[in-house]
Amino acid sequence: MAEVERRLRTIGEDDFPWLDELLRYILATPGKRARPAVTLLAGHLFDFDPDVHISMAVAVELLHTASLVHDDSVDKAPLRRGVATITARHGDAVALLLGDYLFASSAEMVCATNNVRVITLFSRTLRLLADGELREIQQAFDWTGGLEEYWARVERKTASLFTTAAVSGAVLGAATETEIDAVTEYGMSLGTAFQVVDDILDLQGDASEVGKPIGSDLRGGILTLPALLYLGDHPELNEKGPFARLRDERETMTEPDREQCVDEALHLIRDSDAVENSYAVANRLADRARQALGKINRPANPALQSLMDIIDFVVQRHS
Amino acid sequence: MAEVERRLRTIGEDDFPWLDELLRYILATPGKRARPAVTLLAGHLFDFDPDVHISMAVAVELLHTASLVHDDSVDKAPLRRGVATITARHGDAVALLLGDYLFASSAEMVCATNNVRVITLFSRTLRLLADGELREIQQAFDWTGGLEEYWARVERKTASLFTTAAVSGAVLGAATETEIDAVTEYGMSLGTAFQVVDDILDLQGDASEVGKPIGSDLRGGILTLPALLYLGDHPELNEKGPFARLRDERETMTEPDREQCVDEALHLIRDSDAVENSYAVANRLADRARQALGKINRPANPALQSLMDIIDFVVQRHS
Repeated sequence: MAEVERRLRTIGEDDFPWLDELLRYILATPGKRARPAVTLLAGHLFDFDPDVHISMAVAVELLHTASLVHDDSVDKAPLRRGVATITARHGDAVALLLGDYLFASSAEMVCATNNVRVITLFSRTLRLLADGELREIQQAFDWTGGLEEYWARVERKTASLFTTAAVSGAVLGAATETEIDAVTEYGMSLGTAFQVVDDILDLQGDASEVGKPIGSDLRGGILTLPALLYLGDHPELNEKGPFARLRDERETMTEPDREQCVDEALHLIRDSDAVENSYAVANRLADRARQALGKINRPANPALQSLMDIIDFVVQRHS
Repeated sequence: MAEVERRLRTIGEDDFPWLDELLRYILATPGKRARPAVTLLAGHLFDFDPDVHISMAVAVELLHTASLVHDDSVDKAPLRRGVATITARHGDAVALLLGDYLFASSAEMVCATNNVRVITLFSRTLRLLADGELREIQQAFDWTGGLEEYWARVERKTASLFTTAAVSGAVLGAATETEIDAVTEYGMSLGTAFQVVDDILDLQGDASEVGKPIGSDLRGGILTLPALLYLGDHPELNEKGPFARLRDERETMTEPDREQCVDEALHLIRDSDAVENSYAVANRLADRARQALGKINRPANPALQSLMDIIDFVVQRHS
């Protein structure tokens, strides 16, 4: 991971200092680096090759960072990881082009693996990320798709990149197809659990720990698992009460009214068993990820335990 | 090209009709399709393989379309090819994500060539496009870089994609390295000429023919070749007059004042020999493109004449 960090700091153009400053700002803010860690560990499970696995891990983190820069612009988010977003500091145009630059840099990095299978997987992931975010825009304040659309979004906007992080490590490590299937299941379950926990934290986390404002999904008209479970148990709230008001009066309500509605809705969810039930879903996904790893029959390897530890980290984290 | 058009219409997701509508809107608006034509013709100069060359041509047009969708959002452009832009119709967030989706689709399409050299070339081009646009943002209303920065921008934001369009056709056609060098010079000169003519048309074209408002570069604080040549001959206008006012009073001037300044500046340039001198530059670039093609020693081939015709089309076009 130290080499991944070092490589992340070399992205840029020799003759364009302003761009380099933007890149250092966005790439030096320490993130969890969960995705590149998964790539390296999946490589270590099989035949680890520092040349290709480190390039792939850097590419995965660059793709993730690019998508954050674009998502923050789409969501008009003021903060990320506790610091001002690129869109808040420099505006949407710079966020858009810096994100494009990062996407391209990640694509170049994945080309350095010289493996068309992982390059193709990577391109598909980039498409799924955009697809998932477009679905989120289309479904804002339109909650008719319910849980089915929620899982479709989560698969595309989050689980796809965890899956690619894991699978690319395995493919580049010359894993068998059966092993690649197990790693796919691991990445998909882990990534889905990650998003479920993210959605829980957006409803009940501590803003200073999470590094961004609480309730942003609801404010933007997006219902996530805890809200959908709660509304499933209280169908009358689809017609009246704070959820229905946030949806039906969004064009006319004042900002204090909106904040009060968000607050009421958050309290309703937190005081119910929807959060507990959402954690139960995350834990079932975590179990599935553990079982997937259990299918890999290779000699004892510390990477396996680290991949298990990442599952615990994902479901137990507070930020 | 008919197959390229057909393939452009198949991009999308089976279960996401709203996205399909957006894609049809943006991909069915007829463009010049100069870039994919260059790819196919460069392939025909050597060993044309429909499978890979058509995928590559589709990828090139998708990448171009993606960059237009993003550029229009950056420039807040109302019109493109005579119809409303995605940003004007659906807002910046949709333009950003639709552009990402198109970038990803183009990357997937180039992966179908199974050729890591062209995939790498393609990724690098995506990076240069973003780099060129970021330079343009940084240099808006800062004209100290002069012609040197102008050529650096043109190389990245336009010539890079023409070069990749041509070179990928040659590489996939198993051209020799000497031939690839000649095709590189063709693409670079053609693309640079294309942008010079674009910049001339933005200053003196007919808005209804060009399909977008005239003077948009000046309005956005960007000096292109004709303006830079004109200011080079009239250094006093760096300090006073319409150019200096557009730069120095941009925060305070009223919209009618700004439009009057743009109009005055446009008239000054049109009434000078700057436009003629800019066309002379475009024609020298066109000659260089012709000479590059002349270096390719293969049996007589109609593709060679068509690549020559594209040079004429690029420097003689009115839109």
